[in-house]
Amino acid sequence: MKEKFAGRVDIFKSSEIRDILKLTERPEVITFAGGLPAPELFPVEELNRAADKVLTGDGAQALQYSCTEGYKPLRKLVAETMRNKGVNVTEENIIITSGSQQGLDLTGKVFIDEGNTIICESPTYMAAIYAFSTYRPKFIDVAMDDDGMIMEELAKALSANPDAKFIYISPDFQNPTGRTLSLERRKRLIELANEFDVIVVEDNPYCELRFAGEIMPPIKSFDTEDRVIYKGTFSKIVSPGLRIGWICGCPEIIEKYSLFKQGSDLHTNTLSQMMVAELVQGFDLDGHINKIREVYGRRRNLMLKSMEAEFPDCVTYTRPEGGIFIWATLPAHINARELLKKCLDNNVAFVPGEVFFPNGGNGNTMRLNYSSMPESLIEEGIARMGKVLRREI
Amino acid sequence: MKEKFAGRVDIFKSSEIRDILKLTERPEVITFAGGLPAPELFPVEELNRAADKVLTGDGAQALQYSCTEGYKPLRKLVAETMRNKGVNVTEENIIITSGSQQGLDLTGKVFIDEGNTIICESPTYMAAIYAFSTYRPKFIDVAMDDDGMIMEELAKALSANPDAKFIYISPDFQNPTGRTLSLERRKRLIELANEFDVIVVEDNPYCELRFAGEIMPPIKSFDTEDRVIYKGTFSKIVSPGLRIGWICGCPEIIEKYSLFKQGSDLHTNTLSQMMVAELVQGFDLDGHINKIREVYGRRRNLMLKSMEAEFPDCVTYTRPEGGIFIWATLPAHINARELLKKCLDNNVAFVPGEVFFPNGGNGNTMRLNYSSMPESLIEEGIARMGKVLRREI
Repeated sequence: MKEKFAGRVDIFKSSEIRDILKLTERPEVITFAGGLPAPELFPVEELNRAADKVLTGDGAQALQYSCTEGYKPLRKLVAETMRNKGVNVTEENIIITSGSQQGLDLTGKVFIDEGNTIICESPTYMAAIYAFSTYRPKFIDVAMDDDGMIMEELAKALSANPDAKFIYISPDFQNPTGRTLSLERRKRLIELANEFDVIVVEDNPYCELRFAGEIMPPIKSFDTEDRVIYKGTFSKIVSPGLRIGWICGCPEIIEKYSLFKQGSDLHTNTLSQMMVAELVQGFDLDGHINKIREVYGRRRNLMLKSMEAEFPDCVTYTRPEGGIFIWATLPAHINARELLKKCLDNNVAFVPGEVFFPNGGNGNTMRLNYSSMPESLIEEGIARMGKVLRREI
Repeated sequence: MKEKFAGRVDIFKSSEIRDILKLTERPEVITFAGGLPAPELFPVEELNRAADKVLTGDGAQALQYSCTEGYKPLRKLVAETMRNKGVNVTEENIIITSGSQQGLDLTGKVFIDEGNTIICESPTYMAAIYAFSTYRPKFIDVAMDDDGMIMEELAKALSANPDAKFIYISPDFQNPTGRTLSLERRKRLIELANEFDVIVVEDNPYCELRFAGEIMPPIKSFDTEDRVIYKGTFSKIVSPGLRIGWICGCPEIIEKYSLFKQGSDLHTNTLSQMMVAELVQGFDLDGHINKIREVYGRRRNLMLKSMEAEFPDCVTYTRPEGGIFIWATLPAHINARELLKKCLDNNVAFVPGEVFFPNGGNGNTMRLNYSSMPESLIEEGIARMGKVLRREI
């Protein structure tokens, strides 16, 4: 059978980490390896009422095929939220996607020819590496510091790769590092993109989840040349199970996404689009988001406090102002994959950071999630990790 | 901007037919161009009850991320329906997809390298041509007659293309022709696939919708070498708007689909999977399917009767035993695209058949849909078409 598969199956050849991560699903494991929103905060009753209203009011439409670009009232509502972020668009600039992940796959389809160069952060979102890899690009990953991607390094990367197809960047509380791109760098990024005539793919699933510091305008709000493609989602503020994301860009680009989306899945779930549109209109979504912020902020504070108490001083880590992840760096001689095996023996888990580097390396890094774990287990899990770390370092 | 897009955008270069088909959406047009199920038959109340039960019973699960292979109870129910069709499988052989269309995209990802040959019926499903074309194969389309793909022609195509990646075939009431592959040919197809060691992708969205003749076992039921990949869907028997399809194959193949599905959209809508599982268990789905069969059978009969009365004798057409499409062939000198423009002047529409031929040609063919149109409009629409045809031929 093997010889029947397409060559691109080789992107999955290293499955060791996938195999280890399966072990994190044992019920006795306290896992910081996931990236799940806290399910106790889902607006279950409100969505149930929305489903009832939509099915009772227009069941025939809610259950029928619908148009590839998405349910128009939802596109209008999304355009309104984009305008509230300082991005001057209408529903013509919006396509609804089957979760934000589909936006990555479609970005690959629309832009990547085999061998093209794409530029990303170092580290970057693991599922973006997989989604793009399907179309076989070369990744140039650009160093970050606590203010996000370093613009001098980006300028060098663009000079060395003037044909780069796009810059993929997640500016707010990035997965995996939790870092946020500074305001000054957002403006500089646009200058560089204009100078080198390169597309920017701004992936922003976490921007609403800020619990400290100043709200940042999206990169897209500084875009004067229609070169930024913004990806948003309802997964982190309403529900990930409904798989409703969106892409915001100029109509010429949105049309290409739409053509490839038609071949990919025809359209996004009609009922769920109508439910989310109903919810956004009839529900205090801002109040709901404040509740999420409060809970995640408390969990982040507790995780950082526990790490300060339990981890050896030579372990450094980010202090995110929002989102759901902390990124830790171990002494260079410690391999996080080996460490994970030892942690699993103590029933605690995280994700080794090397999977977030498209060109490998950085074996001494790791990602910790705090959003989906009750506070008592955060303390206990970090204590277990601390015990292993103190023994290994 | 144009030079930024990937080369594969050229598959969309001919948009003339898309532009014409947009005109069919004017409300005064009686359109046989669609492929929609009859919305008045959707089990709206039952699905509303299912949504309420699922969200009340386990809202946290229904709204959370879920596993890429799909909701296990639904995979088990699908495996059971496959066993009822004579295919001996368990849930390990099933992956739930975001509609059957996603199964096509994933098939491209799993199997097609640029330049590979794939074999299909002539004509074949238009959206499969688009989905596969993203991965840039060469199509060899094999002639059909009223019993479906002609096996002598398939044998020739396989001999001439021994490296063909797969045979894509829709054996029951095929879109666009409405034709069904005979039992004898199903068996012969498997013999040929075994002899030439080629994968078979069996796309079967309509098999339940038979209103005349004998039920046929799927090609997959004759598969002894794990080389048939079966694609099924709830779109035609429950609701297309929920986007729930499935693929059935050996675990080695299902694993590859799952890896690429993860990059494509992480997983299928959790709530909708749970709703469909609830519906399949607590609802007389067979009785519901019988109701659909009865209505579609009546509409098909009326359309054929109207065509007999209104169309010139030189127009020939298929007499499907199920499904939702009739395929008509005009005299060779009539171009269906030009005919459509004249029909639109008379507020009636269909799809010109040339779009179903991956290598073009066959301008004198057309596809007519009867499932979504009330009976009075079927008679009136065919009368309008007859008037144009009698004038043009």
